[in-house]
Amino acid sequence: MILSHGTLTFPAQHLDTARQMLRDLAAQTRTEEGCLLYLVSENLDTPGQFLITEQWESMDAMQAHLALPGVGEAVQAVQKMGVNDLTITAWEAGGATKIM
Amino acid sequence: MILSHGTLTFPAQHLDTARQMLRDLAAQTRTEEGCLLYLVSENLDTPGQFLITEQWESMDAMQAHLALPGVGEAVQAVQKMGVNDLTITAWEAGGATKIM
Repeated sequence: MILSHGTLTFPAQHLDTARQMLRDLAAQTRTEEGCLLYLVSENLDTPGQFLITEQWESMDAMQAHLALPGVGEAVQAVQKMGVNDLTITAWEAGGATKIM
Repeated sequence: MILSHGTLTFPAQHLDTARQMLRDLAAQTRTEEGCLLYLVSENLDTPGQFLITEQWESMDAMQAHLALPGVGEAVQAVQKMGVNDLTITAWEAGGATKIM
């Protein structure tokens, strides 16, 4: 399984648009093959900074998602809104521990 | 490295208290040895559902955190506020891929 953690920060004037765009992206992505989890959330300490929390069955599934035209378009759209700190890292998940 | 993903949902009447409690917990936890990341965020699709996104140098460091009295007290406090879906899972991080 793949675990992915992404963050990006929007300028204040675009926050409402950003929230809706991220909700739409999440709804779409959850329908894609191999997507186990796709959550979009806003940092409680830094309003305007959003987290994208993903789980995928495999890196192949995640890469298929990233190769979709809509994903490239979304990246371009957020850059046009002034986002310049988009970062996403994915890890192969090793042994899991259920803490609670 | 350890990657951890937690979620919990608060009843509507406790949301402001919950947000501040989570901010305080994050600020404290970031000072602890071995804590690489501790972000608290709110689900854009489900207001009142919060994510706790953690990265630790090792499972020993995470377990030392979990054994602190303040952590047990925080768990009890959220349960008293009506949270009954707290779940946290931690994984050993395998190979990383920088996506963006």
